[in-house]
Amino acid sequence: MSTIQDVARHAEVSVSTVSNALNGRVDRMRPETLARVEAAIRALGFRPSTLARQLKTGHTPLLGLLVPSLANPMYSFIAREVEACAQERFDYRLLIGSTYRDPAKEAAFFEDLLTHGVRRVIVISSLADEGHVESAARRGMALVSYDRRATPGQASGVAHVAPDNFAAAQLATRHLIEHGHRRLAFVTVAGMTMSRRDKIAGFQAAAAEAGGDVRAQVLDGGTLDEYGDSVIAEVGRASALRLAALPAAQRPTGLVALNDLMALGLMAGLREAGLQVPADVSVVGIDGLFLAALSNPGLTTVRLPVREMAQAMVERAVQAEAEMPDDRVFAPAGLVVRESVGAPRR
Amino acid sequence: MSTIQDVARHAEVSVSTVSNALNGRVDRMRPETLARVEAAIRALGFRPSTLARQLKTGHTPLLGLLVPSLANPMYSFIAREVEACAQERFDYRLLIGSTYRDPAKEAAFFEDLLTHGVRRVIVISSLADEGHVESAARRGMALVSYDRRATPGQASGVAHVAPDNFAAAQLATRHLIEHGHRRLAFVTVAGMTMSRRDKIAGFQAAAAEAGGDVRAQVLDGGTLDEYGDSVIAEVGRASALRLAALPAAQRPTGLVALNDLMALGLMAGLREAGLQVPADVSVVGIDGLFLAALSNPGLTTVRLPVREMAQAMVERAVQAEAEMPDDRVFAPAGLVVRESVGAPRR
Repeated sequence: MSTIQDVARHAEVSVSTVSNALNGRVDRMRPETLARVEAAIRALGFRPSTLARQLKTGHTPLLGLLVPSLANPMYSFIAREVEACAQERFDYRLLIGSTYRDPAKEAAFFEDLLTHGVRRVIVISSLADEGHVESAARRGMALVSYDRRATPGQASGVAHVAPDNFAAAQLATRHLIEHGHRRLAFVTVAGMTMSRRDKIAGFQAAAAEAGGDVRAQVLDGGTLDEYGDSVIAEVGRASALRLAALPAAQRPTGLVALNDLMALGLMAGLREAGLQVPADVSVVGIDGLFLAALSNPGLTTVRLPVREMAQAMVERAVQAEAEMPDDRVFAPAGLVVRESVGAPRR
Repeated sequence: MSTIQDVARHAEVSVSTVSNALNGRVDRMRPETLARVEAAIRALGFRPSTLARQLKTGHTPLLGLLVPSLANPMYSFIAREVEACAQERFDYRLLIGSTYRDPAKEAAFFEDLLTHGVRRVIVISSLADEGHVESAARRGMALVSYDRRATPGQASGVAHVAPDNFAAAQLATRHLIEHGHRRLAFVTVAGMTMSRRDKIAGFQAAAAEAGGDVRAQVLDGGTLDEYGDSVIAEVGRASALRLAALPAAQRPTGLVALNDLMALGLMAGLREAGLQVPADVSVVGIDGLFLAALSNPGLTTVRLPVREMAQAMVERAVQAEAEMPDDRVFAPAGLVVRESVGAPRR
């Protein structure tokens, strides 16, 4: 690659003349000198080092994005929307990492981002304790935390963008109740994040409002060692096998899944155990993945407004100085009714 | 964030003493001075600027990764494996972008990577013409191209890592023929990449070796405007509806899908049209996504050795100077037999 020295040699001017031209200090430069420098830049395909410019301006057009795992289709969906907005509207590129909701991995990623000069970061984690995120914010990062509300009454250097997880689970649960289900279960994984807590609360609120004969239990299917890969679907499959082993009169007939990937695993497990969806058990997901449309039966799910949330996060991270709300909660985009919910067997 | 000046002030030494300590020039430094500097670095959480170091060494521990679209689960699967290897073995982070197999978008990404000082790049594209990739290699990038063989007889500055797409499609097709299928179709999308060409050749070779009564056609289902999102599955669904509209005696009974996402779309479309898999039509995918295990019926597919290929790509990109083959082709990891293939109806 050509250097500023090459350009100077090619244009037969001094390095400082090239530097002046590059930095717009041209008022005392003769037009033919400037033209020679510009011609040399074009001829050599020279690009001034952004690194050198960064050292001066402190500005790096890179956006950091931490996800639990890129292999979970919901996070790659969000990553694509974040990337599209960052790239098309702000000319930012994405520096991405999977951190498996591990605070130590997240903190290590913040360190690396800081050393790369990245100051604008979106973190998807939803951990109840985000002290390490606050700490990165105090060190000068513009941080947006996804899928986690702000902690009430606590000042924060971090902005929060989240779907209304309570409302999403409530919507899913009400749909089951409207179809006549009275034995309900919310199927989740071990480990409590703020978004999981909110979904469980929404599930329980919908059950409570439906009255006394509704039984609502929370099934915690198992730990995720490698979060978000096939693992969450496998937890769903294992939970389905445990449910299938219950006597039919006690088995929940309506399941709200933590998310669509869990719902796909649940349906696979129910099928494996010889139960039919929705004749024996109805299932509702949360997310609205395009993959939910491909399942058999098609998965009924609560669609989250992923594009809108991604845009809000990018805007907040990139324009951290602008007047803009610190915390935003997005209502679910609605229930997508497909074929996985029916009336319970009598 | 603290600066080198803060450290000097805190340790009550000069800035050049701190600089000497940071750069290992400590042979003439008194041990207690070094200890004071180190204590100040710890107390202030100081990190020397990697940017400044980069300017000296020209080394940036960032790996560029271009994918057609992050929203296609196969590419997020590969991205996760690339990231894990780059991070755990080489301490590299990932700078990622979706480029929709568009040479202009790919070239723009190369430009941005160059200005960010990124010199090690993996590009997933499989375009027949990779002149813009060669051009980036000539400008000093260590480039690995995925899913595309080297062009025979042509010197290249680019390394190539690819699955044996010919063998993968051949394996899938032979499986259908072994089950008694004679009317076969390979279902693909519009637009010819090198990997698609190889898969079609493998499909046709398997049909040819089976003898005269086998009819093998290639169905090109439509253009991908937003490559790799739900679109490829939608092309599969539309192709299935067109196949279902054929008279049963002419309809292919065995389908090889371009990839698993296409296969999932095909199965959804066949079901929509009232056809059963595998009783009416058998389907085989290529990729080995974990999602293929969740489909109903479970998708039989040719598993590609994603982890091994990801490791080979990262090793080649990061250790570009080492003695290592330029081009590697990986045999498929095998056929994963599930439930989507059966004998054709008589």
